[in-house]
Amino acid sequence: MEGFNLELSEQPESLEQILVDCRDTLKYGVRTGHPRFFNQLSTGLDIVGLAGEWLTSTANTNMFTYEIAPVFVLMEQLTLKKMREIIGWPDGEGDGIFSPGGAISNMYSVMIARYKFFPEVKTKGMAAAPRLVLFTSEHSHYSIKKACAALVLHSYCLEGRVIPADLEAKVIEAKQKGYIPMFVNATAGTTVYGAFDPINEMADICEKYNMWLHVDGAWGGGLLMSRKHRHKLNGVERADSVTWNPHKMMGVPLQCSAILVREKGLLQGCNSMCAGYLFQQDKQYDVTYDTGDKAIQCGRHVDIFKFWLMWKAKGTVGFEQHIDKCLDLSTYLYNKIKNREGYEMVFNGEPQHTNVCFWYLPPSLRDLPDGEERRERLHKVSPKIKAMMMESGTTMVGYQPQGDKVNFFRMVISNPAATRSDIDFLIEEIEQDLN
Amino acid sequence: MEGFNLELSEQPESLEQILVDCRDTLKYGVRTGHPRFFNQLSTGLDIVGLAGEWLTSTANTNMFTYEIAPVFVLMEQLTLKKMREIIGWPDGEGDGIFSPGGAISNMYSVMIARYKFFPEVKTKGMAAAPRLVLFTSEHSHYSIKKACAALVLHSYCLEGRVIPADLEAKVIEAKQKGYIPMFVNATAGTTVYGAFDPINEMADICEKYNMWLHVDGAWGGGLLMSRKHRHKLNGVERADSVTWNPHKMMGVPLQCSAILVREKGLLQGCNSMCAGYLFQQDKQYDVTYDTGDKAIQCGRHVDIFKFWLMWKAKGTVGFEQHIDKCLDLSTYLYNKIKNREGYEMVFNGEPQHTNVCFWYLPPSLRDLPDGEERRERLHKVSPKIKAMMMESGTTMVGYQPQGDKVNFFRMVISNPAATRSDIDFLIEEIEQDLN
Repeated sequence: MEGFNLELSEQPESLEQILVDCRDTLKYGVRTGHPRFFNQLSTGLDIVGLAGEWLTSTANTNMFTYEIAPVFVLMEQLTLKKMREIIGWPDGEGDGIFSPGGAISNMYSVMIARYKFFPEVKTKGMAAAPRLVLFTSEHSHYSIKKACAALVLHSYCLEGRVIPADLEAKVIEAKQKGYIPMFVNATAGTTVYGAFDPINEMADICEKYNMWLHVDGAWGGGLLMSRKHRHKLNGVERADSVTWNPHKMMGVPLQCSAILVREKGLLQGCNSMCAGYLFQQDKQYDVTYDTGDKAIQCGRHVDIFKFWLMWKAKGTVGFEQHIDKCLDLSTYLYNKIKNREGYEMVFNGEPQHTNVCFWYLPPSLRDLPDGEERRERLHKVSPKIKAMMMESGTTMVGYQPQGDKVNFFRMVISNPAATRSDIDFLIEEIEQDLN
Repeated sequence: MEGFNLELSEQPESLEQILVDCRDTLKYGVRTGHPRFFNQLSTGLDIVGLAGEWLTSTANTNMFTYEIAPVFVLMEQLTLKKMREIIGWPDGEGDGIFSPGGAISNMYSVMIARYKFFPEVKTKGMAAAPRLVLFTSEHSHYSIKKACAALVLHSYCLEGRVIPADLEAKVIEAKQKGYIPMFVNATAGTTVYGAFDPINEMADICEKYNMWLHVDGAWGGGLLMSRKHRHKLNGVERADSVTWNPHKMMGVPLQCSAILVREKGLLQGCNSMCAGYLFQQDKQYDVTYDTGDKAIQCGRHVDIFKFWLMWKAKGTVGFEQHIDKCLDLSTYLYNKIKNREGYEMVFNGEPQHTNVCFWYLPPSLRDLPDGEERRERLHKVSPKIKAMMMESGTTMVGYQPQGDKVNFFRMVISNPAATRSDIDFLIEEIEQDLN
C-alpha cells in the first residue's frame, strides 16, 4: 500500500492518474496467465476467451430474460445441451444453468435434490422434511459441506477416495438412526489429489437406496472432452446432476461454471418465485426462454459468451488437445521426480489428473530418521520455499497439509502455455531455494 | 437463429468467422447502454467502468486469497469500509463482501442472521433451531423469499409499504404460535414502486423483540451517495446488514453487489470451512487478508476494480451528480404525465426513487366505464405497446401487473446519459403506437 494511493475521495482524479492507477494495479498484481503460475486450478489466459469477456462487458447485459440477452440465452441453451450430450444423457436432454462458480453449482445440486425428494420444504420450511443425509468424501470440495450447512442437511463423511462398501455401510447406518439418505456426491477430480471417485459403483448404490447422485466435476469435468482420459468419469451419464467448471481445466476466463441436471423442470420447480415484474407470461415471445426463474440469483452475469467463442475458435478437438497436453505434462513431472533424490510422493501410482503431490526434503532432512522432529521440520519446508518463490517472483505453486500428512506441494497444470522447460524450472527453483 | 450459426463443432472455425460471430452477437443483442433503454434497474455503460472490467478480465484472478489478488483484496477492503462509513456505522467498522448480485447478498444476510441466533445450525442441521420467522413486505424483492425457501425459514408477508404497527402485530402473532421472530427485511427502494420502508420505526421493533434488521438497498442504496436524497434511508445505520448494488443506481457494469454487515466475525463464523489447501495458516503474510473463508463461494470473481476505478474517476461527488440527475429526470417524467390525458398513475404522490408507474389508456379506452371490460382491455395495452417498441427497436420499458392491478408501465432511470428529450421520445412512442 506504499506508493499506491488506494483512497477514494470526494473529488475526481485526473485521467492521467487513472491510467497510472491501472498500470499500478497490473504491476502489483499476480500474473496468473504466466506459464509458471501453478498455484490454482484456474490458470492461463486464452486470448479468444479474453476477447469474449471484453465483448461481454461491452454488451453489459443480464441473463435473466431472453428479451435483453437473446443471443446469449440461445448460446447458453445450445452449449449446455452440448455439454449434456458429452456427459452422455440421451439426446442431450435435461436442464442446466451457468452459475458464479463451482461452490454455487454444488449448492444448486443439493437444493434441487432436496426439492425433488421433499418439495414442501420450499413453502413449509424445515418442518416439512425429515432428517436428510448427504454422503461425501473427506477429500471432496468443501463447498459440499458449505451447502449442507446452508441448506440444513446432515453430512456423513467418507474417508479418502470413496470405497463403495463403505458408502453402503454408512447409508445403512444412517437409515438405522432414522435418517433419510438422500444425496451422494462423487468427486471427479479432487482438489488436492485429483482423484476420481468410482461413479458406476456409487450409482449402483444410489439406485438401490433411491438417492440422488451428484458428480462434482468442477475440476475433472474437462476430461470428458478427451477421448484418452474421459474413461476416468465412466458412469457420469448415470448421475442426476453434474458440476463442470470450464474456467478450470478448459482455460475459460473466470467465472464459468455449469450445473447440469438430468431431469427437466426441477431447476424451475425448485427456484421459481414467479416475480411478475420480470417474468411476465404475456410477452410477445416464448417465455420459456427466460432463464431467471431457474436461478437462485436474480440478475445473472453473462458467463457463456467467452466459453462459446473459445469453443468456436478451438473446436472440440482444441479442448481435447489442451487437456491431453496438460495431462502429459503432469506425467512428465511425475516421472521426473518419482525416483529423484529428495522427493517423496504423497500418494502411490500415476496421477489421474494433473495434480502431482510431493514432499521435497532438503539435504539436511534426508538422513533424519522418521519421527516427530522430521515431521515438524518437513512441515515447514514448503511454506518456506513458497515464500521465497513469491518474494523473488519467479513461480508459484500451492502447498497444504492433509489429514495427518504434513505440508506438501500440490502441483497442478491447467495452462496449455506451460512446457517441459517450465516444469524443469520449477524443480530447479525448489532445489536451489533451501538447503 | 436464422443466419447465425450458433452450433459448436469438432473442428475450429477460422479467425474471420470468429470476428463475424462477434459482430453478429453485438448486432442481434440489446443495447442496454442506450439512453432510451429503460427496461431494467441496471442500464448505461460507463466507459471508465468498462475499462476497469477489461483490465479485470485481463488480470483473470480470483478474490479468495490475498496471495493471488493482493491489490484487488486491498481495494475491496477499503471500498467496503468507505461504504460502511457512508451507511453511518462508527468508523466504518464491520465487515462485508462483494457477491454475484443482490439475491446472493440477501441470502448472505439471512444466513448470517441465522448463524448469529443459532450457530449450531451450521454443524447440527435443522434439528438445532426452532422455527425461525422472517418478516418482509409483499413488495420486497423475491430473493428474500428465495433465501427463506433455501435456508428453510418461515416467511411472514406484510402488505404494501411496511406499516410498523402491522409488523409488530405479526411479530406478536408469530410468537404466540411458538415461532421465533428472527429477521426483518426493510426494503430501501422496492423493485416496482421504488418505495422505501420506514427503517427507523422498524429498527425500534427489531430492538424491542431482538430481531435482525436487514436493509435491502440493492436498488435504493445508491441514494446514500446523495445529500439530497439520502434521508429516504434514514435509520440505515441501525441495520445489522445492508445489501447495496453499485451495478444498479451507480452505473457500475454488471456484476457489482455488496453485502455489508455491522458485526465483525459473523461472515467468517457463518461460512468458514477452513479448507486447508487454500487458507493455510502458515503463509508468509497476514492471512486475515484472505477473504475466501467468508464467502459461500470458493472462487470469487473480481467485481471491485471497475467500481473502485469509477469512484476514483468520478469522486463521491460524481456519483452524487449521477443520482441526482436520474432522480430529477424521473420527476420531470412524473410532472409531464401526472395530469396528461390518457395517463393514470399507479400510486399517489411524487416517486421516491426513479420508478414512475403508470397506465396509458389509448383513446378507445378512455370513455369506457370502470369495470371488467376496461380492466381486461387495459391489461393488454402495455404488452402490446412494448412488443411494438421491441419490434421497431426504438426504446424499451418494463411493465407488469401487481396484486389486483392490471399491467402497467414501470419506468426506471439509472443511466445518466438519458436526457429530457429521451423521456419526451418515450411518451411519443407510447402514444403513437396504439389507438
